[in-house]
Amino acid sequence: MKIWQKNTDVNAFVEAFTVGNDRILDLQLAVADILGSLAHTRMLNSVGLLSNDDLASVQRGLKELYTEAVQGQFHIGEGVEDVHSQVELLLTERIGEAGKKIHSGRSRNDQVLVDLKLFFRMEIAELVKRTTVLFNRLIQLSDAHQSVLMPGYTHLQIAMPSSFGLWFGAYAESLVDDLELLKAAWKVCNKNPLGSAAGYGSSFPLNRRMTTELLGFDDLNYNVVYAQMGRGKTERILAQGMSAVAATLAKFAMDVCLYMNQNFGFISFPDHLTTGSSIMPHKKNPDVFELVRARCNKIQALPNEIALMTANLPSGYHRDLQLLKENLFPAFQSLHECLEMTAFMLEHIRIKENILDDPKYDYLFSVEVVNDEVLKGVPFREAYRNIGLAIESGTFKPQKDVQHTHEGSIGNLCNADIRQAFDRLVAAFDFERVNKALNKLLE
Amino acid sequence: MKIWQKNTDVNAFVEAFTVGNDRILDLQLAVADILGSLAHTRMLNSVGLLSNDDLASVQRGLKELYTEAVQGQFHIGEGVEDVHSQVELLLTERIGEAGKKIHSGRSRNDQVLVDLKLFFRMEIAELVKRTTVLFNRLIQLSDAHQSVLMPGYTHLQIAMPSSFGLWFGAYAESLVDDLELLKAAWKVCNKNPLGSAAGYGSSFPLNRRMTTELLGFDDLNYNVVYAQMGRGKTERILAQGMSAVAATLAKFAMDVCLYMNQNFGFISFPDHLTTGSSIMPHKKNPDVFELVRARCNKIQALPNEIALMTANLPSGYHRDLQLLKENLFPAFQSLHECLEMTAFMLEHIRIKENILDDPKYDYLFSVEVVNDEVLKGVPFREAYRNIGLAIESGTFKPQKDVQHTHEGSIGNLCNADIRQAFDRLVAAFDFERVNKALNKLLE
Amino acid sequence: MKIWQKNTDVNAFVEAFTVGNDRILDLQLAVADILGSLAHTRMLNSVGLLSNDDLASVQRGLKELYTEAVQGQFHIGEGVEDVHSQVELLLTERIGEAGKKIHSGRSRNDQVLVDLKLFFRMEIAELVKRTTVLFNRLIQLSDAHQSVLMPGYTHLQIAMPSSFGLWFGAYAESLVDDLELLKAAWKVCNKNPLGSAAGYGSSFPLNRRMTTELLGFDDLNYNVVYAQMGRGKTERILAQGMSAVAATLAKFAMDVCLYMNQNFGFISFPDHLTTGSSIMPHKKNPDVFELVRARCNKIQALPNEIALMTANLPSGYHRDLQLLKENLFPAFQSLHECLEMTAFMLEHIRIKENILDDPKYDYLFSVEVVNDEVLKGVPFREAYRNIGLAIESGTFKPQKDVQHTHEGSIGNLCNADIRQAFDRLVAAFDFERVNKALNKLLE
Amino acid sequence: MKIWQKNTDVNAFVEAFTVGNDRILDLQLAVADILGSLAHTRMLNSVGLLSNDDLASVQRGLKELYTEAVQGQFHIGEGVEDVHSQVELLLTERIGEAGKKIHSGRSRNDQVLVDLKLFFRMEIAELVKRTTVLFNRLIQLSDAHQSVLMPGYTHLQIAMPSSFGLWFGAYAESLVDDLELLKAAWKVCNKNPLGSAAGYGSSFPLNRRMTTELLGFDDLNYNVVYAQMGRGKTERILAQGMSAVAATLAKFAMDVCLYMNQNFGFISFPDHLTTGSSIMPHKKNPDVFELVRARCNKIQALPNEIALMTANLPSGYHRDLQLLKENLFPAFQSLHECLEMTAFMLEHIRIKENILDDPKYDYLFSVEVVNDEVLKGVPFREAYRNIGLAIESGTFKPQKDVQHTHEGSIGNLCNADIRQAFDRLVAAFDFERVNKALNKLLE
Repeated sequence: MKIWQKNTDVNAFVEAFTVGNDRILDLQLAVADILGSLAHTRMLNSVGLLSNDDLASVQRGLKELYTEAVQGQFHIGEGVEDVHSQVELLLTERIGEAGKKIHSGRSRNDQVLVDLKLFFRMEIAELVKRTTVLFNRLIQLSDAHQSVLMPGYTHLQIAMPSSFGLWFGAYAESLVDDLELLKAAWKVCNKNPLGSAAGYGSSFPLNRRMTTELLGFDDLNYNVVYAQMGRGKTERILAQGMSAVAATLAKFAMDVCLYMNQNFGFISFPDHLTTGSSIMPHKKNPDVFELVRARCNKIQALPNEIALMTANLPSGYHRDLQLLKENLFPAFQSLHECLEMTAFMLEHIRIKENILDDPKYDYLFSVEVVNDEVLKGVPFREAYRNIGLAIESGTFKPQKDVQHTHEGSIGNLCNADIRQAFDRLVAAFDFERVNKALNKLLE
Repeated sequence: MKIWQKNTDVNAFVEAFTVGNDRILDLQLAVADILGSLAHTRMLNSVGLLSNDDLASVQRGLKELYTEAVQGQFHIGEGVEDVHSQVELLLTERIGEAGKKIHSGRSRNDQVLVDLKLFFRMEIAELVKRTTVLFNRLIQLSDAHQSVLMPGYTHLQIAMPSSFGLWFGAYAESLVDDLELLKAAWKVCNKNPLGSAAGYGSSFPLNRRMTTELLGFDDLNYNVVYAQMGRGKTERILAQGMSAVAATLAKFAMDVCLYMNQNFGFISFPDHLTTGSSIMPHKKNPDVFELVRARCNKIQALPNEIALMTANLPSGYHRDLQLLKENLFPAFQSLHECLEMTAFMLEHIRIKENILDDPKYDYLFSVEVVNDEVLKGVPFREAYRNIGLAIESGTFKPQKDVQHTHEGSIGNLCNADIRQAFDRLVAAFDFERVNKALNKLLE
Repeated sequence: MKIWQKNTDVNAFVEAFTVGNDRILDLQLAVADILGSLAHTRMLNSVGLLSNDDLASVQRGLKELYTEAVQGQFHIGEGVEDVHSQVELLLTERIGEAGKKIHSGRSRNDQVLVDLKLFFRMEIAELVKRTTVLFNRLIQLSDAHQSVLMPGYTHLQIAMPSSFGLWFGAYAESLVDDLELLKAAWKVCNKNPLGSAAGYGSSFPLNRRMTTELLGFDDLNYNVVYAQMGRGKTERILAQGMSAVAATLAKFAMDVCLYMNQNFGFISFPDHLTTGSSIMPHKKNPDVFELVRARCNKIQALPNEIALMTANLPSGYHRDLQLLKENLFPAFQSLHECLEMTAFMLEHIRIKENILDDPKYDYLFSVEVVNDEVLKGVPFREAYRNIGLAIESGTFKPQKDVQHTHEGSIGNLCNADIRQAFDRLVAAFDFERVNKALNKLLE
Repeated sequence: MKIWQKNTDVNAFVEAFTVGNDRILDLQLAVADILGSLAHTRMLNSVGLLSNDDLASVQRGLKELYTEAVQGQFHIGEGVEDVHSQVELLLTERIGEAGKKIHSGRSRNDQVLVDLKLFFRMEIAELVKRTTVLFNRLIQLSDAHQSVLMPGYTHLQIAMPSSFGLWFGAYAESLVDDLELLKAAWKVCNKNPLGSAAGYGSSFPLNRRMTTELLGFDDLNYNVVYAQMGRGKTERILAQGMSAVAATLAKFAMDVCLYMNQNFGFISFPDHLTTGSSIMPHKKNPDVFELVRARCNKIQALPNEIALMTANLPSGYHRDLQLLKENLFPAFQSLHECLEMTAFMLEHIRIKENILDDPKYDYLFSVEVVNDEVLKGVPFREAYRNIGLAIESGTFKPQKDVQHTHEGSIGNLCNADIRQAFDRLVAAFDFERVNKALNKLLE
């Protein structure tokens, strides 16, 4: 069943060790693998390496498998080593000898490379979709609670007036910058390694630009040695993109846990979304957010894990690279869920109004009062000293009517600008272009 | 000397501990800090918070300081806490009371935020410049040694024919993808946080779009809470961009060390660029590349270090963030040097010709021969079996005339395409736009 | 089914998210959980919180469950939240109401804490056992190939004569130091947190010294706040211990991959333990060692992952800690397998004799010749210059008869001393003491 | 000036790049280097490689240099490559030709190895000393505030009564476990690599057991290949030991920052130890603890950084290892300062009494009341339901007289046991034994 199999059989112990979880992980690559073969075989035909008849039956068979894979009906049989072998096996069962010809002109190295890139594109598209849902929810909450004030902290010390509008909006804008990283990852993923064979190209007259176009890639990984070098590197860059989103979620989750704490008490969630105890009725454990935080911090550790696994490996393929699937594939699922869960919870968040009525927050407004004086013409140092003296003598009166008007401040959140920046970035991925190409390939 | 200083003096021990290396590190921010103040004061004037006379003298004084800082003549005095205080102090000494007004409408928080962003922009520009030098050198070497073959390895086992053209070109193309990450970092850096004050905005009628334009930023960090949240995050993203370049350099250095090893013996450098021993004349220690590798792996560890130092901190400023300068600032210098050193060494690299004449590399060509048969019409499985038998019986004759023609292969490196991709990316940074804005500001 | 369940039901979505993989991971804790309950209930009885009759039936029931769990017949039912609930449920089904009393005087927090410590002790014992097998194999190979020379490299440059005796012995001795780390982890694990309740103790008159003795712990985690703080910390320390062993394996695997490379060609393995290709008969891919390397580097990343997930969490339990099981539990299995696989492969390793006959290694001996002159009375600098001149003029003759006699050198490996150090360390774990206590508990 | 210098001079650029900061960092190794030479030369004499006269003058000269180095009067001259060369140079200037003979029988590789181990021993001793000061302070505070209650949190939700006695004591006990890691590092450091030469031993009849005894090492790194392999590994293990202490400090600092926050308000420090603002008089920024947290998290990242820099390097020396000094040496200083600063701040900490009088903490006691009922004979489930109903109907009355008597609980802190465990561990380092050996060497 294994291509490199000679007469001597590989010790079963060794085989179990080397295959590992690959059979399960590879299932996620089935759709990508079939797409790659659809394009590859059309190219083979165009350069005279596959007859028209063979092409027709191969395309028919692959499209059938594609439909099954999309519907979750693709399985990797016992004793079949990986997804590539399973596709070839099924195809040959169904259409005969032609099925064996789809491997011509490529090696498993570039086949898995292109599978990964196609798969990563799908996962990025899904991440962007779910990030958009969360972004919209945050902007909506920011707009809705624009005028509800809360304390702002520096050094974890009560410092200045802030607002729920600012708080929600900040995390929305954070996602904008996170998309920059995801877009860089997308750019790196959206190049075609197919045709690099085992990392050194081949003597077949392949047309790599044709498969690039058929698969909707932006461009080629030209140099075949570099195409192979992309393995591990692509994963690391993608993990960095994911960790950008994850860092935003984790920080938000930390804020939520703190603000749900009774000493803060700024926000709450309905009982059925927290865990508690009937004898500690005040206790509303934010388990969901603790787990979002933990999962996202785990994802933040991923780029480093990949770096450690690939550091100081000379160029050329090493089997080490296979193991990266184990790290990365479950991280996609986990991040998808964290995005979805955070958006879901935010549908139910409850905001405490009038927090700043509590006199412990009075000094929040001292800077405001100084600034008011300055705007009236009092020199800053003098205004500052006056308020300091008023506070010291107990005569300070906070003026709680916050008048912030500049861009991005309490009274002028610029959420429309933030939304515009987000939309512009999402558009720059140009998922449409990719979808069009794939639809055409599947026609 | 410290702005927050009250009557009670801070214990000297505490002060030494909290200031740390800041005075030295801050020197690198002097140019950026002065640029920020040039823009900020023009904006203050435009909204009526600084008189025309004060503006004129402040601008004159700041431009003078700018010239001095660029010439390396800016120093932070004993007892002066940081670069911001030093600028204000010098300015006040030279132009009088007006010098004290440059702090109006901002806090040290947004002042250091904008300083860092301006400084990071300069460092990124420098990185791109040096990366370009290395890229050009690699492409040049790839072109020059296009037809010199070398073995290609998979699993560190001799596998397929490769070439020096491929090897050098691969690392050139690797830098293209690395620029995607640097560009994402650039995009994140190239937004204006000035006006966010202590992270919660202010009641001054600031015009943040104006300083954005004056400083050549692409856009604002709108939300003031997010502007503050960018501290630590920007550093992490930038470190990821740097680690992309660093990973390419480290991998290349590993290849070099391996290929200089006498068991490989593919490349060498003149004696004066290696270290050795007169009684081990064969010994040419690749110290430079070992140190490039080590330094670059250290840089690869940086994003994780930043993540660990910022994980689980709730929103709002924390003094922890100050310490990130200690990690990041020396890393710029180190990466600049690694890029420069690698490019320098590559001016002197010597390539071994005719490596593949050694019969130990004969089997490199077996796949070639199989493919040749296939191209002549022999079914793959049959051709494969034939060659296998020929090898087993000792009758196999390698055909060492490699005919690879597809895109990115030995005979068709596509270096022009790779260069085009590189140039397009460099252009997308649009450093020109920034320089124009800054030149105008300094007029 | 959940202890904290009130009238309002927790949203199913939230529940699925929070439970995660816990049900599967918890299976590994079953044996430990039952042991903990055996000790806890005996203590409860001794302080008057459980009647003699109840104790008798509980002990009987738990011992029954213990046997089942050891035999792999313990399962966690659908809808049962965790291993603790499952044990309580089964017990109550079998022995009635008394089964519900085993939870008295503890919370799930200290129950899982003690489960983890008991489980970690078992895993450490297993690691030490497998490490011992590998250690023995390495010492045996070192002894067997004591006099077979190989080149020694510095800077990856041919430097000095080495031997297979040194090479194998070095990795054996490396495991000695690794055990120091594992022993530190063992010491940290071998303290009793039971009785700390939710991290703040309780008003029950528990006898924590009694459970400490019953479970064979060295000592208590005294302070109940610290007992809770041990969660996450224990995992990190244990992961560091594991990463010590992993680092040794990974480095050895790197050496193996390099020495199997045809440019080195120092060692080989039988065909059935490598993967290859019938048309590249020279190709013996060291997949097993590449995967050992990758898996062990993944384990090396684990302490950092745990650090990132726990950094900056204030004291007290957080749900984040639950997720650490996901990282650590599979790492045990993986490291066990790597140790076993490496020992297995080493049963089949083939050593190349007479490597140094190849003239390319002649200069290896130049330092030897200098030293010989010095021992005959020639001043070092003079001897050095003489040999240098001889080499330059081509008259140098290597004296390949290596005479190294000092401790730890080619002719005097001190393997007996290394073995003694290893044995002394293994003995210091005193697994026997733990086993005795547990056997007594199960009587 | 460089030992490997031949006729061709190394390019100045290359030299600056390769030397890096070594000249400054090496200063810290001067004392260790001289100690190593004192032992090495006595051994050389004992095996007939150094005359009695030469030994006498070398010992005299080295002891003189030792005194100067201890007094901070040792400098590395311009153009001198490292500390080893500087010692040899000064010695030769003072005692003539005999000074050049101290290098016989060793290479710079084992010389720096033994220097590092001796230096690391000193740093560990210093860390243990400062950890002891902090430990004592914490125990003292725990004893002093034994009966002052505070809320205990789980999930950051108010959960159970805790106390300052528990809180301080928890961090004291945490340091006990941290010492286990430091002790493992000490064990790994306390073995003698001297005599391993360039990592492959030598033909000189060295007596490595003699230098082991003279330098007070526990044992040898026997295998010379392993002795070399210890470079990088020792640093990583030591960094893990340091990161254990650092993690405890960082967590404590996080608690402090949280408890100083006005929403908690459990503790405070005098004004001169915090930073503030005269117009925000409530603001007491915990800068010191934020920087302790940040510095300690940076130290937590160190083991990973070292792992990344050494991963996948084959055995034998690589110049990469030199760079580890840059990471590790400043970390010692930083951790020393963090320990000292934390102990210093704790001399001034102010504790809020009667925190739990605030009715928001009433539900803290609900579990207590349930347990009281149980102890009076009410079945747990019934007691639990009763209290739940009382709370729901508003008739619940907290009984705030906490009666915790078991080991490690509020009423029974077991600080004497914790101190005993700490003292036992410190004693196990047996610093005395090392000091005795070194004193004898210096006699």
